[in-house]
Amino acid sequence: MKVLHEVEGGVCAPKGFKAAGMHCGIRKNKEKKDLALIVSDVPCSAAGVFTQNLVKGAPVVVTGRNIADGRAQAVIVNSGNANACNDGGEMVAERMCALVTETCGIPARDVIVASTGVIGQPLDIAPIAGAMGALAAGLGDNSNDAAEAIMTTDTVPKSVAVGFSLGGKECRIGAIAKGVGMICPNMATTLIFITSDVAISPAMLKKALSADVKTSFNMVSIDGDQSTNDTCCIMCNGLAGNAAITEAGADYGTFCKALHYCTVKLSRMIAKDGEGATKLIECNVSGARSANSARNVAKAVIKSSLVKAAMFGADANWGRVLCAIGYSGERVDPDAIDVAFRSAAGEVVVCKDGRGVPFSEDEAKKVLLKDEVKIDVDLKSGRCRASAWGCDLTYDYVKINGDYRT
Amino acid sequence: MKVLHEVEGGVCAPKGFKAAGMHCGIRKNKEKKDLALIVSDVPCSAAGVFTQNLVKGAPVVVTGRNIADGRAQAVIVNSGNANACNDGGEMVAERMCALVTETCGIPARDVIVASTGVIGQPLDIAPIAGAMGALAAGLGDNSNDAAEAIMTTDTVPKSVAVGFSLGGKECRIGAIAKGVGMICPNMATTLIFITSDVAISPAMLKKALSADVKTSFNMVSIDGDQSTNDTCCIMCNGLAGNAAITEAGADYGTFCKALHYCTVKLSRMIAKDGEGATKLIECNVSGARSANSARNVAKAVIKSSLVKAAMFGADANWGRVLCAIGYSGERVDPDAIDVAFRSAAGEVVVCKDGRGVPFSEDEAKKVLLKDEVKIDVDLKSGRCRASAWGCDLTYDYVKINGDYRT
Repeated sequence: MKVLHEVEGGVCAPKGFKAAGMHCGIRKNKEKKDLALIVSDVPCSAAGVFTQNLVKGAPVVVTGRNIADGRAQAVIVNSGNANACNDGGEMVAERMCALVTETCGIPARDVIVASTGVIGQPLDIAPIAGAMGALAAGLGDNSNDAAEAIMTTDTVPKSVAVGFSLGGKECRIGAIAKGVGMICPNMATTLIFITSDVAISPAMLKKALSADVKTSFNMVSIDGDQSTNDTCCIMCNGLAGNAAITEAGADYGTFCKALHYCTVKLSRMIAKDGEGATKLIECNVSGARSANSARNVAKAVIKSSLVKAAMFGADANWGRVLCAIGYSGERVDPDAIDVAFRSAAGEVVVCKDGRGVPFSEDEAKKVLLKDEVKIDVDLKSGRCRASAWGCDLTYDYVKINGDYRT
Repeated sequence: MKVLHEVEGGVCAPKGFKAAGMHCGIRKNKEKKDLALIVSDVPCSAAGVFTQNLVKGAPVVVTGRNIADGRAQAVIVNSGNANACNDGGEMVAERMCALVTETCGIPARDVIVASTGVIGQPLDIAPIAGAMGALAAGLGDNSNDAAEAIMTTDTVPKSVAVGFSLGGKECRIGAIAKGVGMICPNMATTLIFITSDVAISPAMLKKALSADVKTSFNMVSIDGDQSTNDTCCIMCNGLAGNAAITEAGADYGTFCKALHYCTVKLSRMIAKDGEGATKLIECNVSGARSANSARNVAKAVIKSSLVKAAMFGADANWGRVLCAIGYSGERVDPDAIDVAFRSAAGEVVVCKDGRGVPFSEDEAKKVLLKDEVKIDVDLKSGRCRASAWGCDLTYDYVKINGDYRT
């Protein structure tokens, strides 16, 4: 039985999926792709999780409706305009779905639609309608084009795919993502589209995705802001031919593990590409009373502006870590907390039992100057663990988010 | 009857209060005062509010104990070392109180002690002990010296005093404060010391202060981090000769109003002097379902890194305001929200009923380039209001907090 391993191909790695991405004209820069399409040869089990922001973009509302029956077959997504906080946005989002019907023969109610970009402005359907024929004609092994078309201030396309076995059948999961903080000129949006050829019931797929995001995408924070358009959708078409997963068990466990590999890898990529970021920060909390407590502590550390700024300065300022833990809202014992900084350059213990311990500033600097830094926190009050991912706070974050119109 | 008016003198404006501030040697820079003392000629009613951080500095613990009986007569405070997350910190804080007994004859249990500065390092009592004689000898009309001695990365000392009448008696409230984000080299600490010659019972004073901070200091956010040492204490010595306030009524109302004038003025000063800040941002929320809801929405806007960065860039990016309202956790109607930007240069309405409205970018730029900018949010769902104060996010915030050791 083949163990979990990475493969090429992104969302096209699983059997029966094709993708395309192109410039249609929503963005002024013709070099920049702004429209993507992903389709499955056959209908899929599908599930999605969306922004908890009360202010929701129109595509989030439409996709929520379309995916409610646990079925989907295509994704249409544009960058350059978020189709949010405008008039008639839902009609435009519905129209995008209808364009997939017209060009690919897939029912509009089986289309996942998403948008990312400026908010508060109407999204013109004309450039999308004009490009749909060419987009559909270009469907193929083009996951990279789709990954590029959903980028905003992302500096790199984000993609992953894995192979694994279920009952002797070779299975695949592929995914693309975007998200780097806020997008020019408006706000943070994380979009994630996952494909798989695994056969799984809509109910179990929904369960798997909902559980997974708690310890993957929901543990990423660039700047603490939450977008109106955040969307993570998965489609599974069953073409791998495995015995359909309809209940918890070994196969479900294997699928969840493969899914988690992909979502954590993308989470780290999203955090590392945070706006202006020079490094990835991972906070690993252990010894917590509950999983929820571990997650909240890890996120408080990752979100602290003072911790983020210290990491930018490669400054072993553990007091800020302790401070963030203290205001996390979780019941911790301040006199039990250990803190260490860790990277490819080594490990430096800076705090034991809530008190500073002597350490070499030079050693600490070396550890913190690496582009992936881990902050290990042991609460010594239980057996639960969690990890969260973020990035440092830099001049460039301020520049990107303060100066974009000037 | 004299209406509420500003007077000179800071914490020494009320009858019977003296202050002193000097350099004792905790800080290396001899130009920088690092020790302050405030004493009342007679015992005072006293109340305090403290950090909610579970990780608390030793002085917070000791002051909490000393003030529990509603009585105090002096404040001793140092900058340069927070006396937090170290060994034996409480003993050092107790010793600071005892030094006030030895030099001023005030019982140690009637002393408010506070510290701000580096955390995780022992606070050496020697320089404080060595300076106490000179400090006590220097007690006088020296509120400014005390205000300077508690500064860390503050760029200006913060002080206010007001006069008003109670039953024909001239009364005073004075206050000094510090706080600008985090302090070099550790974390945000807000310290506020308020004096008054009003006669008021400890119970009513506690009630007044606890209610006040909800709409003053608790509505200030520089970077969302909460210090281990935040302390706000008030002492009232009764020397104004007014009929003692022992219950709610007109006099209590007048006192609360005067107190609120001082605390809001200091809140604005603290926000405007936020680390690296180029401008004060005030968010005024109206039309909320409850006061609590109004406060949470106002704070969400003020705390958003994206809003803060937009204000730095003088960018009328109202989508970020709407986004922050949406994730505030409050039940709002996204389709009812109005947003306007306002300053000395005028007012620009940017969003009506949750939708963007056309506005002049040039006009908006003019409004946002001022050093005090108001963000007016009308939720149109109720009659409650709140204001919160913050500052923009700038290159210098990152510089101050990322680079301090290099």
